[in-house]
Amino acid sequence: MAGHLSLMGFPVRLYDIIPETVDAVRRKGGIQLDGLVKGFGKLEVATLNVAEAIEGADIIAVVTPAVAHREVAKACAPHLAHGQVVYIHPGATGGALEFRKVLEDKKCNARIGIAEANSLIYACRSPEPAHASILGIKSDLLVAALPATETRWVVEMLNNTFPQIRPAKNVLETGLGNPNAMMHPAPTLLNASMIESGRDWLYYWDGITPSIGAFVEAIDQERLSVAKAFGLDLPSIREWYGLAYGARGNSLTEVVRNNKAYAGVKGQKTLLTRYLLEDIPTGLVPMASLGRVLGVDVTRMETVVRLGEFLTGKTFFAEGRTVDALGLSGMTSEQIVAFVETGTR
Amino acid sequence: MAGHLSLMGFPVRLYDIIPETVDAVRRKGGIQLDGLVKGFGKLEVATLNVAEAIEGADIIAVVTPAVAHREVAKACAPHLAHGQVVYIHPGATGGALEFRKVLEDKKCNARIGIAEANSLIYACRSPEPAHASILGIKSDLLVAALPATETRWVVEMLNNTFPQIRPAKNVLETGLGNPNAMMHPAPTLLNASMIESGRDWLYYWDGITPSIGAFVEAIDQERLSVAKAFGLDLPSIREWYGLAYGARGNSLTEVVRNNKAYAGVKGQKTLLTRYLLEDIPTGLVPMASLGRVLGVDVTRMETVVRLGEFLTGKTFFAEGRTVDALGLSGMTSEQIVAFVETGTR
Repeated sequence: MAGHLSLMGFPVRLYDIIPETVDAVRRKGGIQLDGLVKGFGKLEVATLNVAEAIEGADIIAVVTPAVAHREVAKACAPHLAHGQVVYIHPGATGGALEFRKVLEDKKCNARIGIAEANSLIYACRSPEPAHASILGIKSDLLVAALPATETRWVVEMLNNTFPQIRPAKNVLETGLGNPNAMMHPAPTLLNASMIESGRDWLYYWDGITPSIGAFVEAIDQERLSVAKAFGLDLPSIREWYGLAYGARGNSLTEVVRNNKAYAGVKGQKTLLTRYLLEDIPTGLVPMASLGRVLGVDVTRMETVVRLGEFLTGKTFFAEGRTVDALGLSGMTSEQIVAFVETGTR
Repeated sequence: MAGHLSLMGFPVRLYDIIPETVDAVRRKGGIQLDGLVKGFGKLEVATLNVAEAIEGADIIAVVTPAVAHREVAKACAPHLAHGQVVYIHPGATGGALEFRKVLEDKKCNARIGIAEANSLIYACRSPEPAHASILGIKSDLLVAALPATETRWVVEMLNNTFPQIRPAKNVLETGLGNPNAMMHPAPTLLNASMIESGRDWLYYWDGITPSIGAFVEAIDQERLSVAKAFGLDLPSIREWYGLAYGARGNSLTEVVRNNKAYAGVKGQKTLLTRYLLEDIPTGLVPMASLGRVLGVDVTRMETVVRLGEFLTGKTFFAEGRTVDALGLSGMTSEQIVAFVETGTR
């Protein structure tokens, strides 16, 4: 993204926590791109010092695994200034809410915009530091600010770079629309033996068997019920595949088999991947925690989180994005909606 | 078992609910045996009428899937007479307790003995009705009566047929020793994709991968904690493999791989087998329900039961052997132990 923005003509600074990455970008002076976008994107700075990257920036794009958002927020808090926009790309579930909660806890009073996208705009890989291949760019991306009254301003700023970004209703829509929370944790756990068998297998084509697909659709109904409790009428995961990929079918198993984009997607060979380590604490945990508070049946989600804890040894409920971590404890659904819409608690 | 007992010289009557089985046995006049026991076991009666089978019998051996025990008890209740012994072979977890609870509910006042074995004494298959192959006979089997004060009398009776039967401490020992509750439900669920892949696979050798084996051992610790709450010091599942099969190793995955008896045991190709449909409601449910009442951490067992409900569409907690179904509601661990030891509530 840094390379792409530079090629578009914007001045870009890069912060990372991995010294090897920063060193490589510094040595080259930027990032080599190939794939859909070809060229060399010069960067102003590549740094391990977050202040050097964000001071004076108009837009601070946070492009990291969602489990890192909390630490990024802590690192940014002392350096943020009035009028800046933090753009979490993507936020998983609750990215903007968690970021704001950390800033509050850190007594950061800068009046900044915080926004999140519902997905990563790129399909891309980085074969080595300072080198990225952009394989796809989404033609549609939803972004919401927290509070939603600032979404229009933020989307107008982001449209200077990506005109395909559209405003979402609020961060509950972007967060509860997170498809990874549906498609990753439960199927990964129910493919435990396949994963550890050492065999080559295809994540979607082999892994979403009829019973697993039906279970994911049942979990998805819980997600839709949580959304409904917030007044949101979201597409089901099966409808989403039609919208996002033109893939359709009479069951989720059929749908993923009809999704040509999934043809080569390989299955993991270890349980310890982002499919559990990221998508449980920043996907299922916030959805289940919100549902539990609102009185929505989320026993399937909770069962998957617990099973994930048992198989990985992690404590996802304790460390993930619960209503407490999102700064929403003790609030009713109406109060939460009012908060994400207006910023007033 | 009917054929074998007949070949030992005992008069045997057979009751079944499957007309084809009863017809076939009637036509032949008995059961053809091969394998370790060869010969033709003549039966006095084969009948669809339970009264005809049990009236006047000394021992009523109940040899059915454990989920049928409740219906068998209901069918027997009006016909049981003082001095008879009901021998549930095996009881899974709580077989004798559930049987007694049904008799109480049905106002059956006959003073009978109720006992259960911790396992089936045979390894056997029935290739067709009225034909059985006995492939193995266990050299050790634990039996407990309810109450335990009657165990000695019952075991002496049963020793006339099977001298290798030994007394267990009580029905909590036989019930909480149920290894199927450990080895079947969780691994089956975590092999969901393997099961529905259509591939040939080996249940223990492919299915107990390192993470799945470690999870089963963690579930097993919950089982041992429930047993400990009743003053029982049971062998772990790994120790049990050493005792029962001479199979040892540094992990459950290693142990089952070192168990030659498991070499040819194939994996299922559907989720709807007794590994879930029997071993959850008559294995994990009673263990988890007892643990919950006693304040023992059984969240792993409960998670597996819930996941089993979601993937099969069954309501195992509602229909299985909870403390209510076992006639133990409202009792402390001391009261439950006193009840299984003396019969007094």
